[in-house]
Amino acid sequence: MSPASDYDLVILGGGPGGYAGALYAASAGLSVAMVEKDKVGGTCLHRGCIPAKSLLHAAEVFRTVGHAGEHGVRLPEGFTPAPDWPAANRRRAGVVGQLHRGLSGLLKRRKVTVVDGRGRLTADGAVAVGGDTLRGRATIICAGSVPRTIPGMEIDGQRVVTSDHATNDDSDRLPERIAVIGGGVVGSEFASVYTDLGVTTTLLEALPHGVLPIGPDRDVADVLARSLAKRGTAVHAEARVGALEPTGSGVLVPFETPTVSEKIEVDQVLVSIGRRPATEDIGAEQAGVRIDERGFVEIDPATMLTSRPGVYAVGDCVATPGLAHVAYAEAIVAVRHFLGEGPVPVDYGKVPWVVYTHPEVAWSGMTEAEARTAGHDVDVHSHAMVGNGRAMILGETEGLVKVVAQRDGPILGFHMVGAWASELMHEGYYAVNWEALPSDVGQLIHAHPSLSEAIGETMITFSGRSLHG
Amino acid sequence: MSPASDYDLVILGGGPGGYAGALYAASAGLSVAMVEKDKVGGTCLHRGCIPAKSLLHAAEVFRTVGHAGEHGVRLPEGFTPAPDWPAANRRRAGVVGQLHRGLSGLLKRRKVTVVDGRGRLTADGAVAVGGDTLRGRATIICAGSVPRTIPGMEIDGQRVVTSDHATNDDSDRLPERIAVIGGGVVGSEFASVYTDLGVTTTLLEALPHGVLPIGPDRDVADVLARSLAKRGTAVHAEARVGALEPTGSGVLVPFETPTVSEKIEVDQVLVSIGRRPATEDIGAEQAGVRIDERGFVEIDPATMLTSRPGVYAVGDCVATPGLAHVAYAEAIVAVRHFLGEGPVPVDYGKVPWVVYTHPEVAWSGMTEAEARTAGHDVDVHSHAMVGNGRAMILGETEGLVKVVAQRDGPILGFHMVGAWASELMHEGYYAVNWEALPSDVGQLIHAHPSLSEAIGETMITFSGRSLHG
Repeated sequence: MSPASDYDLVILGGGPGGYAGALYAASAGLSVAMVEKDKVGGTCLHRGCIPAKSLLHAAEVFRTVGHAGEHGVRLPEGFTPAPDWPAANRRRAGVVGQLHRGLSGLLKRRKVTVVDGRGRLTADGAVAVGGDTLRGRATIICAGSVPRTIPGMEIDGQRVVTSDHATNDDSDRLPERIAVIGGGVVGSEFASVYTDLGVTTTLLEALPHGVLPIGPDRDVADVLARSLAKRGTAVHAEARVGALEPTGSGVLVPFETPTVSEKIEVDQVLVSIGRRPATEDIGAEQAGVRIDERGFVEIDPATMLTSRPGVYAVGDCVATPGLAHVAYAEAIVAVRHFLGEGPVPVDYGKVPWVVYTHPEVAWSGMTEAEARTAGHDVDVHSHAMVGNGRAMILGETEGLVKVVAQRDGPILGFHMVGAWASELMHEGYYAVNWEALPSDVGQLIHAHPSLSEAIGETMITFSGRSLHG
Repeated sequence: MSPASDYDLVILGGGPGGYAGALYAASAGLSVAMVEKDKVGGTCLHRGCIPAKSLLHAAEVFRTVGHAGEHGVRLPEGFTPAPDWPAANRRRAGVVGQLHRGLSGLLKRRKVTVVDGRGRLTADGAVAVGGDTLRGRATIICAGSVPRTIPGMEIDGQRVVTSDHATNDDSDRLPERIAVIGGGVVGSEFASVYTDLGVTTTLLEALPHGVLPIGPDRDVADVLARSLAKRGTAVHAEARVGALEPTGSGVLVPFETPTVSEKIEVDQVLVSIGRRPATEDIGAEQAGVRIDERGFVEIDPATMLTSRPGVYAVGDCVATPGLAHVAYAEAIVAVRHFLGEGPVPVDYGKVPWVVYTHPEVAWSGMTEAEARTAGHDVDVHSHAMVGNGRAMILGETEGLVKVVAQRDGPILGFHMVGAWASELMHEGYYAVNWEALPSDVGQLIHAHPSLSEAIGETMITFSGRSLHG
């Protein structure tokens, strides 16, 4: 440690990028201070991934109870399940609390100094917090992000909310009617939860596809879109939403699409139109850390270094995929670069993406459209889950595996929708990242019966032959 | 086709090895006849994997309903779920029927000639069935296997049963007390089902470990053993079981262990002491196909050829792992060898294994003990599921990932127990089969939150550092 430094590493922000950096650096023997203005865990743990997935699991349990009779559970005569929203939220809060305690304990055991307060970079490259100044040999900025809002959709936290509120709902009961504005990952996930729990749900998206308009391969996203529509979500693409109008009994949501012009009344509006980096108050300018015109901290993706030597930035505050696991990986790159280890940079075009809707959507690498646009001679094969034995056993046969490869070349993209795609996808992710040929994977064996067999079947069809394909 | 042949390929037996061979060969343009004495699909579809997993899923739904209240489902006051065994079995039969129809239709669409009847090899290498003789340019024997039985445990199909019966139960209700003899895959799976559905279950195993005594790494099997014990399964290892004694109200099962000598009364005994090849009546001798002293058809594992040129054998009737997916892979090797394509042989030491108990157990490659016995300088790391965010969300935190590697070398074995290990294992299977280094996998990214993160965490710990590890 240089004599002028209090710590090897000072981390500004205790979300996934921050705590992963702190835990990893501490395990490598570095002394670390981490500044967090709220609670360690950040958006992901307190207002994002974890509470959202807990509510999605509540919806899954609810669906399971709805079908439990045919699977062999004796239910009371005439029983129809009803959601117990306070119980779902108690459990959600319990899981978050348990993970928060676990993380806090782990940081303590690794001797990470957690400093409560709002940190700011200083002109000489330290971090000021409260009246103190923390000086590190290096600094990592993990300032995170906040939900994007727009005029005409004023967030009141009751009638008009963002994911910050939807993941921390302590209402007595679910709204009866909800409008979700924005069909991206967050909007689709909450539309899935609300729909499954019996809420009349309208999903409004500005782009030409209403559900996951950006990201996964269209064939895969369309399976989710059809499933939501079948379950009752009213999905409107190319929707221009006007200014929201609070009424005595709810909120009026005016919207127009090429075919529809409507004004619907709902009890709640979830505004899920994306997130923006939370970098406006971190002292970047005085510290000589460049911020781009959209508010992202500029970094060199090979090292995660900002424009100021010794200062790194990772996670949602940089213009890379806004995913907790990408923040983890970036934090490790930053720490390893600081240690002089020449880390392998994150390959952003091939990171795993997951949407935890019902059914789940997950992918890694290029869509068919992206591969064609990039000029590849493309070979594409798909396999539907409908004939998969395990999917039948689960009663979850909606789904599809789609593999995009270079003709006679490596796999470029893996896309999946269906039960547990969030987990099964990692196999496809390996194939994409190891630049495997479909035939490399096709000769591997998948357990029978498993959902994963659909992946093997897809790979085999590239050979022009098939098993059940 | 040689003028003397009716088909390119004649397949003796319509189980997984047979139908996979038929479907794959037909997709390669070969003409195929397949002889089946019962129903296409074989043990796996009608008396094995599929119905067993359907019942295991019934148990999962039952457990889910038991916890549904805390996950956010309003249940009637004082409600305790009871199993509806006939419903579970109706669904089981429905799934089997649907898959059977699907398979039959697929065989038809691929123009595979399915011949009903008991086939026998003839001296000149054809297959006789009924009054007909089917002559192929090549033959594949897929004679399958049947449950092993022993004197003193006479199978009556009611009180004393094998998996043939347990997977085809049409009783009005579950037995109240059951003894499962044999703690291998089948015994452990049924013990898991019965225990979860409230049956008083005693598991008796002759070997020193009561649950999965052979196969997975001990640390992993022990998690399942502890879970079963905690849920109420009475597990007795090193148990010598005496002759069963039918009584008016059930069956007396006398057994001795080093510490216990008991005679328990149960309503039903499931004898699950392994399977034996069903090769005694296939005409092997007259056709010059050698059978070993245990009844297995002898094969060259590089080609799946038997001792008679042009005759292959695959699946449970050969002395390789008795798994449907291994039969699939062997069938493809046989067909490709017949086509002169020089297939890659099945790497039997690295195939995927799955036990669909609760929690699930899955593995590929060597256990720690096997690696040490083989003389490797071994490096081993484990990661418990207990701190995994998604496991907490599911409420399924029992579990463990264990990775066995050569010190500073490739991964030799991957072992997992926990929710969805059956599917997650494929990632570890890739790593084992691609002879990846832990560091190769450790630098890959796992989606957050996912159960699969536990795999990434385990791999990272090989570096001497960790995230949440």
